[in-house]
Order: sequence, then C-alpha cells, then structure tokens
Amino acid sequence: MSETIHRAHNFNAGPAGLPLEVMQQAQAELLDYKGTGMSIMEMSHRSKEFEAMLNETEADLRELLNIPSNYKVLFLQGGASLQFSMVPMNLRPAGASADYIVTGAWSKKAVQEAQKLGPTRVAADTKASNYSTLPASLDLDPKAAYLYYCSNETIHGVEFFQEPQPPAGVELVCDASSDFMSRPLDVSKYAYLYAGAQKNIGPAGVVVGILREDLLARVPANLPVMLDYKVQVENNSLYNTPPCFAIYMVGLVMKWIKKLGGLAAIEARNRAKADLLYQTIDASGGFYRGHAAPEARSRMNVTFRLPTEELEAQFVSEAKKLNMIGLKGHRSVGGLRASIYNAVELSDVQALVEFMKEFQKKHG
Amino acid sequence: MSETIHRAHNFNAGPAGLPLEVMQQAQAELLDYKGTGMSIMEMSHRSKEFEAMLNETEADLRELLNIPSNYKVLFLQGGASLQFSMVPMNLRPAGASADYIVTGAWSKKAVQEAQKLGPTRVAADTKASNYSTLPASLDLDPKAAYLYYCSNETIHGVEFFQEPQPPAGVELVCDASSDFMSRPLDVSKYAYLYAGAQKNIGPAGVVVGILREDLLARVPANLPVMLDYKVQVENNSLYNTPPCFAIYMVGLVMKWIKKLGGLAAIEARNRAKADLLYQTIDASGGFYRGHAAPEARSRMNVTFRLPTEELEAQFVSEAKKLNMIGLKGHRSVGGLRASIYNAVELSDVQALVEFMKEFQKKHG
Repeated sequence: MSETIHRAHNFNAGPAGLPLEVMQQAQAELLDYKGTGMSIMEMSHRSKEFEAMLNETEADLRELLNIPSNYKVLFLQGGASLQFSMVPMNLRPAGASADYIVTGAWSKKAVQEAQKLGPTRVAADTKASNYSTLPASLDLDPKAAYLYYCSNETIHGVEFFQEPQPPAGVELVCDASSDFMSRPLDVSKYAYLYAGAQKNIGPAGVVVGILREDLLARVPANLPVMLDYKVQVENNSLYNTPPCFAIYMVGLVMKWIKKLGGLAAIEARNRAKADLLYQTIDASGGFYRGHAAPEARSRMNVTFRLPTEELEAQFVSEAKKLNMIGLKGHRSVGGLRASIYNAVELSDVQALVEFMKEFQKKHG
Repeated sequence: MSETIHRAHNFNAGPAGLPLEVMQQAQAELLDYKGTGMSIMEMSHRSKEFEAMLNETEADLRELLNIPSNYKVLFLQGGASLQFSMVPMNLRPAGASADYIVTGAWSKKAVQEAQKLGPTRVAADTKASNYSTLPASLDLDPKAAYLYYCSNETIHGVEFFQEPQPPAGVELVCDASSDFMSRPLDVSKYAYLYAGAQKNIGPAGVVVGILREDLLARVPANLPVMLDYKVQVENNSLYNTPPCFAIYMVGLVMKWIKKLGGLAAIEARNRAKADLLYQTIDASGGFYRGHAAPEARSRMNVTFRLPTEELEAQFVSEAKKLNMIGLKGHRSVGGLRASIYNAVELSDVQALVEFMKEFQKKHG
C-alpha cells in the first residue's frame, strides 16, 4: 500500500469497504477495460467482453461456493428488499403458505412483504429477547411452501451458524445478504439463497441469487417480467440491461477471495477478527456489553453497548478522529456496531481494539 | 485529453460512453471521495457525504430540467423494464384502462407488461411502417388513466419531437430512457416521466423518475414496498440501499451538462452530430438508406441500411478496426445503428462520416 493513499478504517454496515487491491484494479481500468478503449460500464451488456466477464464472475462464484450444477446463478436489481416480494411471488404457489423465522429487522420486513401477497406463518420470533438470540424452537408447518430465514441480522448482530432444519418436503430459503461468502456454505441445503452485494462481495446495486433449477416449475405464469425468476434464468440475467459495473466489482472480489485461498481462508480471517473484538468486549468487566447472546454472536456485525448513551456518542466521535468510520449502531436499536465484513483487515480491528482499551481507561 | 489514454469512438446503444472528464473524475476519487478515505461506493447511504451528493444530484437535475416544485425526483432500480410494470401498478386505478402508443420494441414491451396487470388499449401502432414512422393519428380513450408513449425508440431510431396530446383529464406518461436530457423538456406536460440512466446520463443500474406529486393519491395500498412510488417518495429514494455509485455517476454527468451550458447547449451539440450523419446518409445517392422517416428521425440512434447484409457486416468489421464500436444494428431489426448520445463528441461523428464516405468509395 502506498503511503499516499488515505483510507479509513471502514466499519460501515453496508455499503461497506471493498478490498484495496480490488479498488485499485477498478481504478486502473476505469477508462480502458482490457484495451477496449471503454470502461466496463460504457460497453454493451451483449458485447463479448461483458459476457466473458459475467460468465467468469459466475464461474468463480460457483467454484468458491461449490455450487451444484442443478443450481442457477442470478444477478438481480432492487436489493434484498425486492427479494422479500419476489420470493413469495415466485416460490409460494397460489393457496400455499410459507413459514418465516424472525430474528431481527430484516426477517421482519420479509414477513411483512410476504403477508401482503398470501398466507404467511411466523415459525419463530425472538422479539422477547430484543432480537439478541436465535430461536429456541420452531413451530413448523409441514405443508409450508418453504421455510425462510435471514442468516445474519445486520442490525441486531445475530447470526445462524447452522441452517434451520425444515420438515421433510419443505424447502429452505435464505436471505444471506450480510454473511454471504464470509464462510463456506452448503448450497445444496437451499432451494433459494440470495444476497445483496454491498456487504461482503461488492457495491450496492446488485443481488446474487442461487436457485435450484426445479423450483422454476413453481413460478406462476404472467408475473411482471422483471420479477420473474424464470425470465432471469432463461436470459442469463440479461433480459434487460443489468447493473454492469456492480457485477464487474463482484467479479473482482471473487478473484480476490480466490487469491486469499477461498472461503475457508476467508472464514479463518473473519473468525480471527470477530474473536479479537468479542474477547475485548468480554474482558472489559462490563464496560462494553455485547448485544447478542454468545451463541448467536454475528461474525459480521458486532453490536455492543457502553454504560451510557453519552459515552456511546463520545466513543463514535473520538473513533472518527482516529479515522474509524461507521461505528454508530443502527438508529432503530442504538448503541455501537462494528461491521467487520470480508474486506476489513485484522489490522483495522486491532486499531479498534486498541482504541476501545484506551477509551475504557479514560472513561471506565 | 492526454495522448496516452486509449478511448474508442463509442457508438454503443446503451450502456454507452460517458464523458471523458466525468470518467477521469470518477477515477481520481475512486479510492478517496473528498478526503473520507473511502470510495463513494464504500460509504453508508445514510452518511452525510452520501446524502449531500444525492441531494446535489437532484438539485442539479431540477435546475437543468427546470422541474416544477410539485414534482418529485426518484432514483430507482430495475431499469425501464421494471417501470413497465410499476407504471400501471401505481398509476392505473383498479378497473381503469390506460392508452399506449406503440412506435417500436420498447413501447411494445411496455404494453405487454401493462396488459398482464389490467385493461390496456393500444392508441396507435406503427407496425405497418416497420416502426419507421410516428403515428399519423391516435385513437384515444377520453377516460384513460393515462396515455403512455416512448419518446425515443432506441432500436428503431424513431423519436418524438412533440409530445402526443392526451384528451383533457388524461395524464401523460413517458419512457424517455434514450433521449432524456438530450434536449430541453417541458416537465409540466407529464404526470410521470422516467429514464434509465445508461444512455445519456450515467451507467446502467439506476432509473430517474419524475412524478407529479398529486399522482401519489392514485397509488393503491399494500403494493410490494419496492414497487411503490409513494414509499420511494416518502423515503427520498432511500427506503433501502440505492445503487449508490450509479447515482454518483449521474451526479457527475449533471455537473458536466451544466458546464457545457445546460440542455439548450446539449441540444445544439446533439443536433449538429445528427445533422452531419443524416446529411451523409442522404447525400450517398441511396448507398446508405435511413430506416426512419425523415420527420421521425431520432437524434440519438441513427439507424440505416446498406445495399446488402454482407456489406453491413463488412462495414461493422472495418469500422471496428478504426476503433469505432457499437455500429451493428439491434439483432431484432438488423442493419446499422450509430448511437450518438450526449457523451459522443462531434469529432467521433466526423470520424464516422469520413469512414462512411471512404467505405462508399470502395464498395459503392
């Protein structure tokens, strides 16, 4: 890293930091992608250069996640929030019900959108713990079209490390927006899995969807064309102009993850960062208090509190002076949150931990 | 322009070329936006820096288009193709019908999506001319919820220079994707006007919508949240994470248009480019034949034919050797197409015209 590059310790919850070398490559080829005399964002999505990039991005994603051949990969727009509607539109047949596990703000929003469109059951809701836990048990409908959950709740900092087990014949659907590709994942357990890119794998503006092929039989006729998984599959995500630059950035991040050694290596790296941060919280004698129950602690979003809101505000403000950005908790829950996605370096977390110790010495 | 920058003569139909100085600014601040130590794509969409950029982009757009204060500006995802569904969902009340003018591939797709969702009439269809003309007359429903048209058909190269006149009490809705901000526009004539950015004002991944405020009263309750104009208006396009980088690029293009002198100056520039190209076609003694009828000729997409398909293929291939990209007509209509959006320079068109003359000398 050149000394002249000013880069923040970026703890943003999403959009989040991207790997420096990815950003540098994007910068280097911004005016001229591979000798074409154009940026990747200035060329036709039907050009051979763009299609090659798209196909390579998909191939890298498949390799990293070991995606079985009976799964299709989609690049979609509208964020996870549009998936909240597209999932029931496409995968819940008329008259059928779907089960939802609510463990925080995002799964709750998914339920609300599903309810607008048809029968929806809540199989569990951890509201009683203020969304600090995983559900102790699930009330499952054996006839549900699918069981839906959010693998990591960005706002509350609660993460599933084991998939919930649907009854036989019930499909599993997951919003993996904020822990996607932060660790290995057994795609074969899912009917559909999707993630907004802007946490671990790219900028905002593109969602990656991974759909088991046979689910396409469920897609009803005559959906609005842009909301139809079948149309997107049949057109290799090129029914209309896709978010070209965002997909390209995802492609660069895939190469970066491969270079680091793949998802097992990324997991080890992410675990080391999370362990360091949670150990610091636990060793603070109660000055720092983690929000999530220990077994539910997210490795992506570390949510914690200080003794007072005044101290929390001061923490954010002093951290900012040290170039540490994005530590304020979400406005809906307050407190502090350090998001430590793939691109955050251990050295960023070390800097944060040093600051936390200093801050406690001064104010504890 | 530095001599070391390799840039193509970019005649792509979209995604299309962006102004060199816009690309250079994006490149310069890609790793560190205004001293934040982050790219604009790495920061929270709720940060003050991002919100300032978003608000400034909207303000510049309002200034350039002279948008009345009773209109809202939206930044949406999903491309024009998602608007094909969102328009009838939001603006055609239950039971009401809407009128559509079909002048090419894009307005035809809009009709198909509208038909899926409710009563839809075709007020005109220029298929008989192979979409080379504007409609001679309109069969209008005085009770229609709105009259819809596409101001420029990218594939056929047909452009309206005067808005169609709906009956009293019928609202006008326009897909302006491929001529938006290529010339001044009287926003007050429209209920809703939208445009995908990837032709004249930015990269793919964002749609700009301009909606007259009172139309919000039509939006039905309980639409999927991401498909609801009301939700987007109430949240200043920040209901969920927007396509941050694409919006930023639109913002840079707004500054560039202002610097050039605004939309009247852009129109003069675009007119000069189109005139030069059509004059060359008309002066070729029939070697080059324009597709569109003279009064319907698009200033954005100049569609033309050569005596044989073999010559057309040769034209594309020889042009490419001269670094002229994107001249092949759309696969659905064949022939040739030079897209000469805002960012294309007169010198690009001059180079093309020189080549056309040479090509005719050799093969005419």
